Amino acid sequence: MMARMSERVGRVWRLRQRPQGPLKAGDLVLDEQAVGDPRPDEVVLRTIFLSLDPTNRIWMSDVDQYLPPVEIGQPMRGVTLGVVEESTSPRFQPGDLVTPHEGTWSTYQTVSASRLSRIRAAPDLPLSAYMSVLGPPGLTAYVGMLDIGQAREGQTVTISAAAGAVGSVAGQIARARGCRVIGIAGGEEKCRWLTSELSFDGAVDYKKGHVGEQVRALCPEGIDVHFENVGGAILDAVIPSMRIGGRIALCGMISTYNDDGPVLGPREFQRVLMQRLTIQGFIIMDHFARAREAYAEIETMIRDGRLKWKDHIVDGLENAADAVNLLFTGQNDGKLMVRVSAA
Amino acid sequence: MMARMSERVGRVWRLRQRPQGPLKAGDLVLDEQAVGDPRPDEVVLRTIFLSLDPTNRIWMSDVDQYLPPVEIGQPMRGVTLGVVEESTSPRFQPGDLVTPHEGTWSTYQTVSASRLSRIRAAPDLPLSAYMSVLGPPGLTAYVGMLDIGQAREGQTVTISAAAGAVGSVAGQIARARGCRVIGIAGGEEKCRWLTSELSFDGAVDYKKGHVGEQVRALCPEGIDVHFENVGGAILDAVIPSMRIGGRIALCGMISTYNDDGPVLGPREFQRVLMQRLTIQGFIIMDHFARAREAYAEIETMIRDGRLKWKDHIVDGLENAADAVNLLFTGQNDGKLMVRVSAA
Repeated sequence: MMARMSERVGRVWRLRQRPQGPLKAGDLVLDEQAVGDPRPDEVVLRTIFLSLDPTNRIWMSDVDQYLPPVEIGQPMRGVTLGVVEESTSPRFQPGDLVTPHEGTWSTYQTVSASRLSRIRAAPDLPLSAYMSVLGPPGLTAYVGMLDIGQAREGQTVTISAAAGAVGSVAGQIARARGCRVIGIAGGEEKCRWLTSELSFDGAVDYKKGHVGEQVRALCPEGIDVHFENVGGAILDAVIPSMRIGGRIALCGMISTYNDDGPVLGPREFQRVLMQRLTIQGFIIMDHFARAREAYAEIETMIRDGRLKWKDHIVDGLENAADAVNLLFTGQNDGKLMVRVSAA
Repeated sequence: MMARMSERVGRVWRLRQRPQGPLKAGDLVLDEQAVGDPRPDEVVLRTIFLSLDPTNRIWMSDVDQYLPPVEIGQPMRGVTLGVVEESTSPRFQPGDLVTPHEGTWSTYQTVSASRLSRIRAAPDLPLSAYMSVLGPPGLTAYVGMLDIGQAREGQTVTISAAAGAVGSVAGQIARARGCRVIGIAGGEEKCRWLTSELSFDGAVDYKKGHVGEQVRALCPEGIDVHFENVGGAILDAVIPSMRIGGRIALCGMISTYNDDGPVLGPREFQRVLMQRLTIQGFIIMDHFARAREAYAEIETMIRDGRLKWKDHIVDGLENAADAVNLLFTGQNDGKLMVRVSAA
């Protein structure tokens, strides 16, 4: 018979203090916590994967944002995938794979059944795919490229952080729709991956020379849609090459998340007027209604061999706080996540 | 019999040097020019009205913009309304009122008939209205508020330079569509005009206290649509009050046109992401296809007494260069134009 949950002790990362700049040792603290029995209509789940995302850093800061900041002393928030170990809900049985509406960086989570979504994982795909291409990053790429960016056949598309979990999928979706796709990434290896493995039409290495000039050389007739994940100097460098009436899907600005204070807008903002640009910010939680269509198309692309991806899996919840900084130095190789326990 | 055009001498303002900061004496020079005979399918028109607009200042600068900059030594470009005095085109007869595709600051203009639009002026409306509410400023207000801003019944709308030629019409169009409209303008008199004459729901005097706080106090539930004519600090002050998913129609940034160098974007640009804002720049020449519908609705509003406006008419082409600066100090009272000759 399974041990009662109440006898177990789990672990959880709590926010101890708000980081200044990059996350440092001591900003988060790994704590023990008792795993409570489920109350009526609750589920106890064991976390399998914890997603590490640039937005985690935003949640640690006390700034106006799209969710309340994580409070000092509280468990760190994160996207997770887990397996049901105990349930008082008729809707969930032990063994079910689920993702809670708002997960935490912890080994066990006790969650109201109303705040759970079931994951129906295909047996022939790695479970980690449901944290990357078939999870929020894949949906973000789909919605950002097609709904916000409105990329259409024949258009020229650029993507920053193009080798990242979102950018690499966004680019392949645009390619599949008949766009010409140029990725911006850091380093020769990432750029080579984009052009040789993912069939991007070109790549700009932002570590090698002037980004604006490289973009202009690769997009001599201008950019119809730009998918922005980085912000700051990268966005500044792209804007002059935007075509009249071009669209910028503003998905993220990772280059700014470690900074204090306000984020200055594009340096040549007059171009938004002169070139009649549209800049549209979006957050994926507004677009979950698109998930079914997006995941169906992405899964088809995977099975057709038209979509490739990498998952970068770090083992052990205790390594989460160190690993998150890989995102900010570009050292992760694929969608970054922590394997908290074995599937 | 009418004197041959070739015997006449007209006057024209030419760009002598690119202004640094506000337009100064000597930047433009008033010159004489012979009025040529019309070649086949050309028209000689006598200018009645010359529109003075913030964008004139952009055209004088050698920066990337939506039209080629006016070249040194060339006639200054402007929106004009004139009467045909001589025509070799079967489409135009002497006495016809016309507006050339690209007019100049001059007393006479010899123009290809293909570059003329006819003005069918209602006899009971002042002809100057076709330079303001029933001309490009009115169309700009209509397109910017309804197509770009997508203002809808029940929404809260803010407008900067709200007492200006575009802003005042944009606000009344939004009011007619059932929006709650708050104008931002400079000085008590303009603000009083907005609320007591134009039925705006509120006004913020940017010369009196903190703009952001005034906006927040008048829009406690946030702004759905902001119509931007000023840019800079005014835009910065409005953005924090934008509702999630709000739209900013970027029509102009007059506060920046006298400056050299790039125009910095909004100071709290992260809000575009966090609040999922859309910022869309537009230029009216992309939207002339909307003119028929826009002018029909505006004329109906005028006759219903739901649309009020002011024309600020300066007499004499020789006063054009001095008058244009009134726009940048906010000293004009209504749509600014020059009466170049009697109708």
